[in-house]
Amino acid sequence: MKARHILMAGTTDSFPDIEYASGFKAPDPVVFLRAGADNYLVVPQMELGRASRTGKSVHVFTPEGLGLSGPARGRLREWTFRLLRRLKIESVIVPVLFPHGVAKHLEKRGIRVLIASEPLFPERAVKTSDELRRIRESQQAAVIAMRAATALITNSEPDKAGFLRFRGKMITSEYVRDLIARILFEHNCMSKDIIVAGGAQAADPHEIGAGPLRAGETIVMDIFPRNMTHGYWGDLTRTIVKGSATLFMKKVYHAVKAAQAVALAHVKAGVKCSSVHRSVVNEFNRRGLFSSVSGNQGAGFIHSTGHGVGLAIHEAPSVSTAEGRLKAGNVITIEPGLYYPGIGGVRIEDTIVVTASGWRYLVPCEKKFEV
Amino acid sequence: MKARHILMAGTTDSFPDIEYASGFKAPDPVVFLRAGADNYLVVPQMELGRASRTGKSVHVFTPEGLGLSGPARGRLREWTFRLLRRLKIESVIVPVLFPHGVAKHLEKRGIRVLIASEPLFPERAVKTSDELRRIRESQQAAVIAMRAATALITNSEPDKAGFLRFRGKMITSEYVRDLIARILFEHNCMSKDIIVAGGAQAADPHEIGAGPLRAGETIVMDIFPRNMTHGYWGDLTRTIVKGSATLFMKKVYHAVKAAQAVALAHVKAGVKCSSVHRSVVNEFNRRGLFSSVSGNQGAGFIHSTGHGVGLAIHEAPSVSTAEGRLKAGNVITIEPGLYYPGIGGVRIEDTIVVTASGWRYLVPCEKKFEV
Repeated sequence: MKARHILMAGTTDSFPDIEYASGFKAPDPVVFLRAGADNYLVVPQMELGRASRTGKSVHVFTPEGLGLSGPARGRLREWTFRLLRRLKIESVIVPVLFPHGVAKHLEKRGIRVLIASEPLFPERAVKTSDELRRIRESQQAAVIAMRAATALITNSEPDKAGFLRFRGKMITSEYVRDLIARILFEHNCMSKDIIVAGGAQAADPHEIGAGPLRAGETIVMDIFPRNMTHGYWGDLTRTIVKGSATLFMKKVYHAVKAAQAVALAHVKAGVKCSSVHRSVVNEFNRRGLFSSVSGNQGAGFIHSTGHGVGLAIHEAPSVSTAEGRLKAGNVITIEPGLYYPGIGGVRIEDTIVVTASGWRYLVPCEKKFEV
Repeated sequence: MKARHILMAGTTDSFPDIEYASGFKAPDPVVFLRAGADNYLVVPQMELGRASRTGKSVHVFTPEGLGLSGPARGRLREWTFRLLRRLKIESVIVPVLFPHGVAKHLEKRGIRVLIASEPLFPERAVKTSDELRRIRESQQAAVIAMRAATALITNSEPDKAGFLRFRGKMITSEYVRDLIARILFEHNCMSKDIIVAGGAQAADPHEIGAGPLRAGETIVMDIFPRNMTHGYWGDLTRTIVKGSATLFMKKVYHAVKAAQAVALAHVKAGVKCSSVHRSVVNEFNRRGLFSSVSGNQGAGFIHSTGHGVGLAIHEAPSVSTAEGRLKAGNVITIEPGLYYPGIGGVRIEDTIVVTASGWRYLVPCEKKFEV
């Protein structure tokens, strides 16, 4: 078998594999090549110094160093072609998301471009102890923020209209989100779209929520901090109610909690991801709560059971109908949820590490419902 | 001329044009199509509700609504092909960065895929008054943070070893960065890689800096906040010295300041971007300070003069050797800099809006050097 030449071109945010493999991150597009055991980068001239000091063994080129001048100096496709020509490489394998404009340019110049059907750095899904430590750091921030937000809502009181108040002040989604964001900030984390969605708003899983929160309605809080230094994420969701939930939402909450427990009981190395997902579907079906699209919006269980977490917030493995088996060292979320347009939603999510015999929490966090 | 069908597939962070055109943003990949005056989106089922309420007129589909089931439901290339088949579209135009795996799949199914040589939403480079207001909001946060950081360094005193101290506490890059980050946070902005780089560290334009700051060394501070709600950026850089700079760095600072003034004097609608860039190169050459790569690292003026700012921190137009002319309503940075490995760097950057007769600051900010 000939050596594979793995090629990527784009920003390190669009292709976290580049940062994973080379240790280099930058806001602007770069070209990355893995040929055998060697890493190559083409970076703008201004990044030459930083790229040469990533700590990993990388051969660094600039467009100028590859003989480009004039407008061609600014074209990613020229950087890529010149690098391959310099290394006498005639065939490359690229990820599905590789830029089409660059691929076509290479093909016109006689380079063979294969599209990978599998992840090109599958080892990225199996975390090292250093990576686990980093994810745990972000997850710890999420847990601390979740406890503070839960305490705020627990200690609030409904006014006559049912709006939650703390020391007289009306508690809104924005207010709780700000509290969470401050705590994440103090833990060197950022989080762009913290979800604090009350009542019917939470029927959309990614609706961040707005306005006053009320007693008796479910409040979904989804916190996914990213450490500003090392870039690893955490992910945590809880659903709470101030006071008493409706009978229907109690039923929904207990179904989601049970489904998460059932899914977790399935998790261990070697198990099919899809069988973990199916255990959730089965649990909801058994309770008569699984359903599909209703009218213009999904209802019931409308997303997958979980996803990998690492340098990207959504990465391999996918705990869904997709193929693949869990491996020891995978970091995944288990986050079943149920959503009812006009009514509300419930989601419970933990981030765990898969082991040979089962799984462990990255950082455990209590599950409270009526507070 | 037949109607153009503009196609994109990916996250809204990777393709800000999708958010620009549809008003929708999400963490996971979506498919976007502009056919005539109509916008189409394919989104995961869980995003159906949010996508249907973007405020702009968008036809929203889900994979399930397009008849997909099983593992195909999770494949972006299937979403894309099904959408085009549903709309009987046989030819599309895509951006250079469009995913190659999706393009090849379409071509195999008989769809013609053209790669755009120009931006597909060129109007995005011309900001509306709403967009200017948003960018100004982020720029204002940058200016306030810059003033606070400058005041901190101004009010610090060197100890016997030359390290800056404020009320006895040693002032480090991390300390100043934290001050800046807090102020940005209070203005609802995030900023991942705030640069506070002292001395030789600043010879790398994107080095964020670490460790104690000293009297007599140049300190580059580059602040680029992104508003957490609307997503528009600002961008601002100043270079200061506590006490007296060396004669060489004084010369460098005055050259950079003069080059920025020369570039700004060239800016107005209709002018070639490359002529603005060339005015900087000429100014540095005239002063004997322009140079190219030296050894393993660039030296002198090693980046372009500026870039557009909006939903992306680096967007059109590019103020560099690239083609194109400035238009009224462009928001661009003018940021000449000079870098000397082992010694340090100087960069001065403002974000401005281009007008018919010249330009205006988004938010003005003083230029101090020795403080």
